Amino acid sequence: MEQFQPTTRTRVKRLAKRGVYEKAAVNAILDEGIVCHVGFTADGQTYVIPTGYVRVDDRIYVHGSPASRMLGALNQALDVCITVTLIDGLVLARSAFHHSMNYRSVVVLGKARLVTDADEKVAALRAFVNHVVPGRWDEVRQPTAKELQGTHVLALPLDEVSAKVRTGPPIDDEEDYALPIWAGVVPLRTAPGEPVGDPRLLPGLPIFDTARLARS
Amino acid sequence: MEQFQPTTRTRVKRLAKRGVYEKAAVNAILDEGIVCHVGFTADGQTYVIPTGYVRVDDRIYVHGSPASRMLGALNQALDVCITVTLIDGLVLARSAFHHSMNYRSVVVLGKARLVTDADEKVAALRAFVNHVVPGRWDEVRQPTAKELQGTHVLALPLDEVSAKVRTGPPIDDEEDYALPIWAGVVPLRTAPGEPVGDPRLLPGLPIFDTARLARS
Repeated sequence: MEQFQPTTRTRVKRLAKRGVYEKAAVNAILDEGIVCHVGFTADGQTYVIPTGYVRVDDRIYVHGSPASRMLGALNQALDVCITVTLIDGLVLARSAFHHSMNYRSVVVLGKARLVTDADEKVAALRAFVNHVVPGRWDEVRQPTAKELQGTHVLALPLDEVSAKVRTGPPIDDEEDYALPIWAGVVPLRTAPGEPVGDPRLLPGLPIFDTARLARS
Repeated sequence: MEQFQPTTRTRVKRLAKRGVYEKAAVNAILDEGIVCHVGFTADGQTYVIPTGYVRVDDRIYVHGSPASRMLGALNQALDVCITVTLIDGLVLARSAFHHSMNYRSVVVLGKARLVTDADEKVAALRAFVNHVVPGRWDEVRQPTAKELQGTHVLALPLDEVSAKVRTGPPIDDEEDYALPIWAGVVPLRTAPGEPVGDPRLLPGLPIFDTARLARS
């Protein structure tokens, strides 16, 4: 299996057995999530900002307004961190200390690159929309030249990458298994609700089918 | 209404109308979430790590192993950032450009303080467990002295704080409202599934009631 090479910065230090470096496993996490948290430093302060993203091949793209603090900082070729986290469940143990969560998270470190090639930029934006709703790009009005100018797209190579995964039941201290306390996992899942049509929706359009959002 | 005073670092710059500074609104977001993303810098590299948290009064607590990279870095009195993000829905517009998400996020900046007072530490851990499952602390075995030693708790004051919130339907360009394209919001909700009992669960215990997890 193809692996990411852990570096001193991405090797999972704490609970090392939860570290995952296989590319297929990392990509599956990145493809399931829709929001990442981007970390960067500007004027000596660390910021963490949530934003949409998409993986294409061995890159992650984010986009935003040229006026944003994030895009300005990312564009200065500084080392940034993009983290994607999926919460799979609450792990309820028999002791307070062993309570935990089941999760899958990916951390990507590196330098972001401003996408200047017009074809790569449009391809990234198409992937971005279709990552959230498969097939959506071809159904909607596509960007004008002015809209493309008003959007910056940044690419971060999937190079220095690691994942951390916890699955399974709680791990209690041996003597605690005798306690009459319910323990186990409460799965958590993010699910779409009933679509709410725009107030100015044209009459007669079929309602959006949330089955299109099924992931993994 | 009591407000956080925005600073040059927390004032929402991009889409300033989405900025929220009322304490009650910020606290409601912090109390609904269960995972935050902590950003810090160590050896010149920014890291973003997901972890549990709880708000108590005007502080956020996180905890972890004394051996973790995060706790080590947070403990050096550097300015960190803790971000909590709730995703409320997908905003599907008639143009690719105006696709968006409905979300509520809080950004907290400041210096973390290691909690050394034993009472404050236990109170924080109790709040931590009860934040995820109300009332759980009193049902489970409480920490031993050794477990308490093996857990570090850090506090970040809710001082330099802002929230950013998007709600409502897509905002399309005027001429696009005539397009025969479904537009609107697909709500997203995180919901608990059927609890999975631990393989070594004692017989006869009532199954965990997920209604206890209802939030807000």
